[in-house]
Amino acid sequence: MNFASDNWAGAHPVIAQRLLDAASGFAAPYGVSEQDKHIEQRFNELFEREVAVFFVGTGTAANSLALATVNRPGGVSFCHREAHMLEDECGAPEFFTHGARLAPVDGDFGKINPQQLKAEIARFPPGFIHAGQPMAISITQATEIGTLYQPEHIAAIADIAKQHDLPLHMDGARFANALAALALTPAQMTWKLGVDIVSFGATKNGCWCAEALVFMHPDQAKDLPFIRKRAAQLFSKSRFIACQFDAYLEGDLWLQMANHANAMAARLQQGIAASSSARLAWPAEANEVFAVFSEPVAARLRQNGAVFYPWNPPRARPGLLKDGEILVRLVASFATRQHEVDRFVDLLR
Amino acid sequence: MNFASDNWAGAHPVIAQRLLDAASGFAAPYGVSEQDKHIEQRFNELFEREVAVFFVGTGTAANSLALATVNRPGGVSFCHREAHMLEDECGAPEFFTHGARLAPVDGDFGKINPQQLKAEIARFPPGFIHAGQPMAISITQATEIGTLYQPEHIAAIADIAKQHDLPLHMDGARFANALAALALTPAQMTWKLGVDIVSFGATKNGCWCAEALVFMHPDQAKDLPFIRKRAAQLFSKSRFIACQFDAYLEGDLWLQMANHANAMAARLQQGIAASSSARLAWPAEANEVFAVFSEPVAARLRQNGAVFYPWNPPRARPGLLKDGEILVRLVASFATRQHEVDRFVDLLR
Amino acid sequence: MNFASDNWAGAHPVIAQRLLDAASGFAAPYGVSEQDKHIEQRFNELFEREVAVFFVGTGTAANSLALATVNRPGGVSFCHREAHMLEDECGAPEFFTHGARLAPVDGDFGKINPQQLKAEIARFPPGFIHAGQPMAISITQATEIGTLYQPEHIAAIADIAKQHDLPLHMDGARFANALAALALTPAQMTWKLGVDIVSFGATKNGCWCAEALVFMHPDQAKDLPFIRKRAAQLFSKSRFIACQFDAYLEGDLWLQMANHANAMAARLQQGIAASSSARLAWPAEANEVFAVFSEPVAARLRQNGAVFYPWNPPRARPGLLKDGEILVRLVASFATRQHEVDRFVDLLR
Amino acid sequence: MNFASDNWAGAHPVIAQRLLDAASGFAAPYGVSEQDKHIEQRFNELFEREVAVFFVGTGTAANSLALATVNRPGGVSFCHREAHMLEDECGAPEFFTHGARLAPVDGDFGKINPQQLKAEIARFPPGFIHAGQPMAISITQATEIGTLYQPEHIAAIADIAKQHDLPLHMDGARFANALAALALTPAQMTWKLGVDIVSFGATKNGCWCAEALVFMHPDQAKDLPFIRKRAAQLFSKSRFIACQFDAYLEGDLWLQMANHANAMAARLQQGIAASSSARLAWPAEANEVFAVFSEPVAARLRQNGAVFYPWNPPRARPGLLKDGEILVRLVASFATRQHEVDRFVDLLR
Repeated sequence: MNFASDNWAGAHPVIAQRLLDAASGFAAPYGVSEQDKHIEQRFNELFEREVAVFFVGTGTAANSLALATVNRPGGVSFCHREAHMLEDECGAPEFFTHGARLAPVDGDFGKINPQQLKAEIARFPPGFIHAGQPMAISITQATEIGTLYQPEHIAAIADIAKQHDLPLHMDGARFANALAALALTPAQMTWKLGVDIVSFGATKNGCWCAEALVFMHPDQAKDLPFIRKRAAQLFSKSRFIACQFDAYLEGDLWLQMANHANAMAARLQQGIAASSSARLAWPAEANEVFAVFSEPVAARLRQNGAVFYPWNPPRARPGLLKDGEILVRLVASFATRQHEVDRFVDLLR
Repeated sequence: MNFASDNWAGAHPVIAQRLLDAASGFAAPYGVSEQDKHIEQRFNELFEREVAVFFVGTGTAANSLALATVNRPGGVSFCHREAHMLEDECGAPEFFTHGARLAPVDGDFGKINPQQLKAEIARFPPGFIHAGQPMAISITQATEIGTLYQPEHIAAIADIAKQHDLPLHMDGARFANALAALALTPAQMTWKLGVDIVSFGATKNGCWCAEALVFMHPDQAKDLPFIRKRAAQLFSKSRFIACQFDAYLEGDLWLQMANHANAMAARLQQGIAASSSARLAWPAEANEVFAVFSEPVAARLRQNGAVFYPWNPPRARPGLLKDGEILVRLVASFATRQHEVDRFVDLLR
Repeated sequence: MNFASDNWAGAHPVIAQRLLDAASGFAAPYGVSEQDKHIEQRFNELFEREVAVFFVGTGTAANSLALATVNRPGGVSFCHREAHMLEDECGAPEFFTHGARLAPVDGDFGKINPQQLKAEIARFPPGFIHAGQPMAISITQATEIGTLYQPEHIAAIADIAKQHDLPLHMDGARFANALAALALTPAQMTWKLGVDIVSFGATKNGCWCAEALVFMHPDQAKDLPFIRKRAAQLFSKSRFIACQFDAYLEGDLWLQMANHANAMAARLQQGIAASSSARLAWPAEANEVFAVFSEPVAARLRQNGAVFYPWNPPRARPGLLKDGEILVRLVASFATRQHEVDRFVDLLR
Repeated sequence: MNFASDNWAGAHPVIAQRLLDAASGFAAPYGVSEQDKHIEQRFNELFEREVAVFFVGTGTAANSLALATVNRPGGVSFCHREAHMLEDECGAPEFFTHGARLAPVDGDFGKINPQQLKAEIARFPPGFIHAGQPMAISITQATEIGTLYQPEHIAAIADIAKQHDLPLHMDGARFANALAALALTPAQMTWKLGVDIVSFGATKNGCWCAEALVFMHPDQAKDLPFIRKRAAQLFSKSRFIACQFDAYLEGDLWLQMANHANAMAARLQQGIAASSSARLAWPAEANEVFAVFSEPVAARLRQNGAVFYPWNPPRARPGLLKDGEILVRLVASFATRQHEVDRFVDLLR
């Protein structure tokens, strides 16, 4: 009953096998091998346009390099106040951008409120050097708290981005989960709505280490080869990242895994909703469920082998918890088994 | 006949298999799993003391984080003028240290000359703020040009380091090759001579992605967990780096691979020495051979399927090449086969 | 009728004359002259303890260097959401700290609410690397919107700082105005309440360029000489900053200027409070008055020669302005003349 | 007999008086006042073209901001191995550029050897990410060791810069001394030879704090307003830097001061050349004389009131000093008096 995080799961057998199969032989290092090129081409098909793809080792690297690529002096990027890049990357985006700022924007359910976004950007009149200058907007899909931006929400934010000539970045650490839940194509969920840069995560969804930074407008990425190398994110045996993506994208394995994780989360959600000893904090829309447990309930679950983390309540929900309650996050992954979900739900009764 | 670089080789079958075997199951992410802890313990045994070990994704990350950990404002690290970190990491050490400087030190055969080192350090009188302040010394073992620091050479540099209270770092991207060639133990080649920090590379020697940053004095590394996370080098599924090291270090696989690579390089060297159509640039001491070819010879080899890179002649060897000659680097790895070495040598006749 | 900012005023005649008098002769550069040392000693007397003093060129430099001195990897400093360092320094604190973060804390009247501060710090459990780590708290006295922290408020924040072992910095760009308004001594307003580092500004209060960074605990500043030089804030003819401070502090000139500015602001406030065509946004406590004007009133004032800036309403005061109204800031300085205040007030009738 | 440095001198009386005269009245801060604009216009005349001018507080800031403006990821700037920015700015250029590298280039008499420059640039093939990428060339005029680049030497370096599409920066901390010595106009010594950016120093030549960063191609500086503000080098009362330049440039005061300093250095040189107890280290061409003294001679001079610094011998001149000898630097300034030069020379007899 491990619901701690999707990154507690290992690697999917198909992906692990592909890594083994690819182990032998010589190939050009640093991302210029045939295999790297082949997978880059695969991304063009996936996104239905020519994109620039860069493999990196961690999601934090993908997000941070995305911002580094569009960096400006005194630059300010806007993201949700409780976005992963703001709360859980130890300042990596600031490090990679030499101190560009992440400006927090409020919004319900972990999603940027477009009105708030407008108001925050308005604090930076063009050319007003004292304030600094806007440089990017970043949204997380699925969000850090398991919700989803609907397409029209993304489009509304993209409109604001375009008005201010700002690139729109999507932190897709759980891109597949969002895509599967919304039943959209990658193109539909990104550039067709105005998204310019995607951190395309695969590690949380069954790879061991495979993250891609995808630029819808390759011109925007022309400095990135130097930026990536300088950030120690160019892997000599990069082809092993490429081969993970090869297996991941083949025959929709990635979507199957995401659908499974989402279904397990839905089942968990259903169980919690029906339970008298816990309640949902807010609706789960992808593979993460946030629930409110009393401390004794949480303790009992743990004693029975359940693994999960407590979570900081959103600042905008000050009344979410009563005394003696905790907010917990329950994450499903490709490796979550239905009988473990059911056992967990049973324990809640 | 691929002698381009040891990072063109894939992963050793034993290591690749271990990755597959470790793929399933849940484990704590971010380097705190049992497996991570187990391998960290293995490093204590290896170095015969309690060390602090940090797994990272690339050798550039290991070197750069080593310097970041001992960073000082206005800091200056001393390394050989043609050290890898100075010539081939795109300024990553400067990036990770927010602009600390790498000061080039001269010395024959890719090795720091202790007298030159003293003279360079002397340009930074203590407290003289205009110059900045020394912060580290870094040596590469085996060196970037395939030579080795003998123990007494390391000890001499360590003496200087101690006199100035500077940590001594060893870039061990080819640590195993050096160790095998010198027939020393890890302790003998490092802290027993005065080395404080080691970039312990395994990627070039048969792993797909396994680098460890090893601190002989764990206190020195107390900020590194934050520095590493912030640098996007903390892998969520870090246990897959750990398991590579597990296989790598088990039963001396790592030294077997290094010995093989060194033997192949020695055979190559012998062949070149005996050839009339090429000459050695300097003695090869580990798994890299540097040779001078005429351009027609190089072209002929390539036409016959040999893969290798040209190399910039050391600045200190201005007369190394005659007109129409090029310096080439030939690298052997765990995957180099003897019959390919022999065929290459045959082609040189 | 120039109420645009206290930095529109020039230099007080006594200070300007002192600069002229000090112009000739030779003296050691880079802050080590007798005159520099003499003024440093003067700061010891002023603060009634041995302090470490560093002259720099701008208030932004003082604030940013203060944070750079206490920098930590993944560091987070807490300041009011609308603090000058967060809103008006173009990311300089982030630049000087290589990307340490300024975390916004809410609070009424431009002042950090201690409960909010506690809640924000609590999001950074010790050793939790994903979040980063707290490194400092900074308050502005007088605040960016012309209010004052009362001593017990400072003490409450200092308590929190001590509990978390965080240095407490005071941005004193308008230190003199606050001190004069509160009728405290420098010691009483700073270290006796738990303030550790002060940006002691004099430029806004009658110098042309004189800012001092004052450490109550000199040990904390041991790296600052390198940090300051590296940040290009060590002036070769530093003695000319020193001599401005000499005149500034002599015979309480600084407090006389501050008292004058405060009195002019109070007169302005009184006039606005009595006016039917404008209203105070909140009480003015030092030398800045914030008022709400209708656009026609603002236009009329400007046509009659008044100079002032509009100001962004605090986020926490969404209902402050009605349609057609603007928030304006009116700043008095040592150079503000009473008859101009009176004329401005007359125009408001 | 103070020959320690030109920055030991104070401010020229005319400049000091101008500061006093400009002290009163209100003016827009942050460099947008009429006075600032007026002086910016003066620079256009001085350089005989439309330039972009930015006032900053120190020469280190000017140099560092110049490089920051042309910064590139993995960027490498080439300067003489013993250039001021490399040896005496505590890593400020690296700090301002977030770690871009200063690559040392050899050359006699403190001047870059064009052949060496070509060879160093050649180590960075375009697009070769491992090496990083060239981003600028910087020369110092007058050099750090008191010599001068002749126009054809500058042109030769500019040719190389153009071939590689690199901006050419001139560190003109002693611009006036060089200009006076060479009897050239600012245009002739800079853009007419291919110089793109000039650190136009005035502090060492009689101002108290006045440095200008001048871009021959204003387009190149479009990000600099943000970069400067962020670096805390935008002075609120910037008009006081402007007014120093106003007095400095008026009626050729600046060249008179430079000519005087150069003449005093020439007199000093003549005296040393004629002396039997000291010798010139190399010819002095501007306002600095480098001489070799025996230690007893140096001691005797100091006992008689002479003030001067020892200097590190150039690395390329290993045999410059015999045992018991030291290299000293003697600097003349606008404030150096002839009788003190003569007394110094007398003491040498």
